[in-house]
Amino acid sequence: MTSGLAILAGDGRLPVQLHQAVPDALCVVFEGMAHQLASENLHVCQFERLQSLFELLKHHEISKIVMAGAMSRPQLDPAKFDAFMHNIAPDFIKVLQKGDDTVLRYVITLFEDQGFDVVAPQDIALELTLLAGAAVGALPDALLADVAYADQILRHMSTLDIGQGVVVEGGHVLGIETLQGTEALLDFVAITSSSLRSSQGGVLVKRPKVNQDMRVDVPTIGPQTIRQAAKAGLSGIVISPDKVLVLDRDTTLSLAQSLDIFILAQDPEL
Amino acid sequence: MTSGLAILAGDGRLPVQLHQAVPDALCVVFEGMAHQLASENLHVCQFERLQSLFELLKHHEISKIVMAGAMSRPQLDPAKFDAFMHNIAPDFIKVLQKGDDTVLRYVITLFEDQGFDVVAPQDIALELTLLAGAAVGALPDALLADVAYADQILRHMSTLDIGQGVVVEGGHVLGIETLQGTEALLDFVAITSSSLRSSQGGVLVKRPKVNQDMRVDVPTIGPQTIRQAAKAGLSGIVISPDKVLVLDRDTTLSLAQSLDIFILAQDPEL
Repeated sequence: MTSGLAILAGDGRLPVQLHQAVPDALCVVFEGMAHQLASENLHVCQFERLQSLFELLKHHEISKIVMAGAMSRPQLDPAKFDAFMHNIAPDFIKVLQKGDDTVLRYVITLFEDQGFDVVAPQDIALELTLLAGAAVGALPDALLADVAYADQILRHMSTLDIGQGVVVEGGHVLGIETLQGTEALLDFVAITSSSLRSSQGGVLVKRPKVNQDMRVDVPTIGPQTIRQAAKAGLSGIVISPDKVLVLDRDTTLSLAQSLDIFILAQDPEL
Repeated sequence: MTSGLAILAGDGRLPVQLHQAVPDALCVVFEGMAHQLASENLHVCQFERLQSLFELLKHHEISKIVMAGAMSRPQLDPAKFDAFMHNIAPDFIKVLQKGDDTVLRYVITLFEDQGFDVVAPQDIALELTLLAGAAVGALPDALLADVAYADQILRHMSTLDIGQGVVVEGGHVLGIETLQGTEALLDFVAITSSSLRSSQGGVLVKRPKVNQDMRVDVPTIGPQTIRQAAKAGLSGIVISPDKVLVLDRDTTLSLAQSLDIFILAQDPEL
């Protein structure tokens, strides 16, 4: 018996790691989109022919789908549409004017309507997240209030559908994640004038939004986050247990260890 | 009869403009701090000898004080303390560990306890602010929803004592002002990847926090804000009427005109 899982893969390490976790999963990429999967056993589909994709999945007795990795918005060529796409095109084109989350939720619904179960990466491979506890180092007592402040901010941000990350240091907010994402946030903190910084080093708190669809835009950290946190003069990172993806976990944790960045998985105290 | 006003001046254009508005005001600077006032009729005081400053003010029959311009935190030399400073030093040193607003509020209280009335720059010279209405250009209808969204964010931020500025574009938040201030916010927006930007151009909304002490950290725009807004690809700026200082008003408005940046003074619709 197979896992019955298909990975709809975009760019980045996550699809690769999911494939390692479930080696018999069916790997699918869309023509023209970047990915890092090995080319063997890879199915290349066209977004304009979703009907063919559904048939492929059913042929392979796929029941579960995980969407993973960065996908650019499809550049649709109507000349290539199959019957299914012709049918949904008016709706789809309207949805493509909206935000990324709306587009992804719409695509999820397309698959669900065909009877597939769309699941989250962390439900396929729980080892992609961290269990509650200190993974590297320890949260200094001096930062307890900063983490609580960051969580207050994240809670308010959630109701406004804004980012998943905040940097606080010594009671001062050094950055709130916006459309540009966590990397841009940490770059911004890194260039903050030293006269505004305190010696203790700030903390990045990163969590899913309240009521976030955990199949879409799951918050993620990885080696790059650790390098940037060090460069930004942070003491460490607090994430939610089980709900934040940790890419290349071994590398991420050992890098944090060597750069003296603590990593704590802990739910907010609200 | 004189105005009975003293300007306690820090760096920047604001003290200069206040002095232009009230030419007979007594100008006071603290030794070692930057300022742009003409040297004639300038009183240089030491922070360690506040008692002498109080006596100077009383001698000149000063009843009102305005604190204006950027001041660095005083580097106090205890060897120079007069009796008054010796008395308050234990409290003052504790306060100096806190945020800027706390320090300024404490200093205001010191003057109030001596019977002086500490007033806001905009109460001295209302022409430093804008009356309600479109000062330059007009807010495009397409940005109405963005301004409403920005105001929602600012309202939440206010309860958390965070910044006074937000940039929104096409329903996406491009930046939230944090400790680094509006210039850093606009620099951050300016380097946003063009793939994340929409063609309509965003809007900067800048207002005092709810319940803000309007004598401290009054939100300010000026020529530099306009140049940076243009560089960040914004359409314009919305500020609160009567409550946001507009430095070098003529220059600011004509620069906005020539760079095609609208300026609207309008209270939030909440």
